[in-house]
Amino acid sequence: MIESEFISLLRGLATHPAARGLRDDAAVLNIADSMQLVLTHDMLVEGVHYLPDDPPGTVAWKLVAVNMSDLAAKGAQPLGVLMGFAMTGDNEWELAFLDGLREALAVFDVPLLGGDTVSMPAYAPRSLGLTAIGSAQSASVPSRTAARPGDRVFVSGTIGDAGAGLALLQGRITTADETARAALIDAYRRPRPDLQLGQKLAPLVHAMADISDGLLIDASRIAEASNCAIHIALEAVPLSLAYEIAEGKALDARLRAACAGDDYCLLFTARSEACQALIQTAKECGGTVAEVGQVSSGTGLSLSWNGGAIPLPERLGHQHGEKRHQAP
Amino acid sequence: MIESEFISLLRGLATHPAARGLRDDAAVLNIADSMQLVLTHDMLVEGVHYLPDDPPGTVAWKLVAVNMSDLAAKGAQPLGVLMGFAMTGDNEWELAFLDGLREALAVFDVPLLGGDTVSMPAYAPRSLGLTAIGSAQSASVPSRTAARPGDRVFVSGTIGDAGAGLALLQGRITTADETARAALIDAYRRPRPDLQLGQKLAPLVHAMADISDGLLIDASRIAEASNCAIHIALEAVPLSLAYEIAEGKALDARLRAACAGDDYCLLFTARSEACQALIQTAKECGGTVAEVGQVSSGTGLSLSWNGGAIPLPERLGHQHGEKRHQAP
Repeated sequence: MIESEFISLLRGLATHPAARGLRDDAAVLNIADSMQLVLTHDMLVEGVHYLPDDPPGTVAWKLVAVNMSDLAAKGAQPLGVLMGFAMTGDNEWELAFLDGLREALAVFDVPLLGGDTVSMPAYAPRSLGLTAIGSAQSASVPSRTAARPGDRVFVSGTIGDAGAGLALLQGRITTADETARAALIDAYRRPRPDLQLGQKLAPLVHAMADISDGLLIDASRIAEASNCAIHIALEAVPLSLAYEIAEGKALDARLRAACAGDDYCLLFTARSEACQALIQTAKECGGTVAEVGQVSSGTGLSLSWNGGAIPLPERLGHQHGEKRHQAP
Repeated sequence: MIESEFISLLRGLATHPAARGLRDDAAVLNIADSMQLVLTHDMLVEGVHYLPDDPPGTVAWKLVAVNMSDLAAKGAQPLGVLMGFAMTGDNEWELAFLDGLREALAVFDVPLLGGDTVSMPAYAPRSLGLTAIGSAQSASVPSRTAARPGDRVFVSGTIGDAGAGLALLQGRITTADETARAALIDAYRRPRPDLQLGQKLAPLVHAMADISDGLLIDASRIAEASNCAIHIALEAVPLSLAYEIAEGKALDARLRAACAGDDYCLLFTARSEACQALIQTAKECGGTVAEVGQVSSGTGLSLSWNGGAIPLPERLGHQHGEKRHQAP
């Protein structure tokens, strides 16, 4: 049984509407008249979600950040986190992890409320879990199911940086200068989901999700959940200067960026009339949004490059159950 | 660094009042005028919190039950759970686990809202995490810190059954008949925290906690947190008939019961005048409560046996970081 089969079976148990069919970034539980509780739990496993020699402080950062990214995608404000930590007896690692945890809690301004600590045998791969709880206004918790024909598709930030950072760490690319290299590795190790932007965008958008597995696969999930077709214009996928230095900006580089994952940017759809308001909102938050495609009636994902249709790559992004850190 | 040292360092990070200094069963977060959110995350590790050959359905049951026990101790009503599940590639085990999970969710009447699934190497010990979210009335969320001199100390249910069940599974005791053996093993594998009783007791008690690590160690934690002394009269510790068949009811058997842990019963203190109301409440819930001691000014835990003081055993119960399943 692979993860996707197990998750299908779990869906049979998760029939409460708040579970959103286990197809959204987070559970959304109506708790009071004007308040929704947004709940997410993401795990990191050594060798799967981070490299064994990643600095422990960045592992703590990532553990918090990937969960904050789920809250950001639902426009939620963090209320607190609970951590499940498996100790394996490496003092130095664990102390450095705590330093990174302290920093992440401070930067994301979220309190550690509790959790559990257990001891694992030293040979076991580390596995870490974090639950994040957030609150959102009832009227503005975007789902993956709300994209509508005619919507435009947007992303926040730049795409592919984390994937290029991983490729650099694994020696799959070697062309970046020191500044670009540092920026890309930092994007991989210390993703920076923008909670404020998520909260401000939430009332303006139709569908919204975070890009954790790859722009294309996450877009295809929105298309499927919304029962619409989504088209992405690859030349519009925003790249950072560091990414362009390392990977270029030709079609193959854009495609790699769009399938890389670990971006923890926001992917959302909105009426085309909302475009200016979205750009202005991002600017107020110190970020950027870019229009990358549109929604139409139909099903599935399609791609173009400067106006010409191009076929979908075989692999759109991370699938549950794949070893992320093997070269695709 | 052992778990208790790590937890001490975490306390330095968990300074929000809702975290209750990481010294309570759960975090208690004020969320609306008359509503508290009760949040807990407990993990189970194979070979530490359950035996590798425990039936997988009972592991799922225990994963839900230990978290429900934390909610019960805070008088909370469950709103939902999120599960972190590490797959290790054993289909049969995982399917049987899901059957047990379905049953536990139904019996405790709590929805599965989300979580995460990851794949672990087959050699890794299984590790499972569950976050439970509950709600409680603001006025009645008991803490561990609220015991007062003059209070009586009570427990719900019977003590030591799970410990005797584990001892039977490990061959450390062999004297039980089949009926007693089955009952005790069931107590170990399928603890039954009483959520309804917890909710009804909450407004009547001062301090309340669940007994997960052992009656004596959990009582000593209430004493310490409340800055009081607690005295336990061992002859008053309620034993089941099955326990008496397996272990007897002499001093050594009562002491073993009081240090065994995994009871997932409630331990609480209340004014002596509340005694009748407590007994009546338990009766209405189909359960029992028994008075086992009293609170006085001072510090620490003391024990007696039919009126005579007896010394504390060296080990009061489970400590974080100890391998629970080695014979003490």
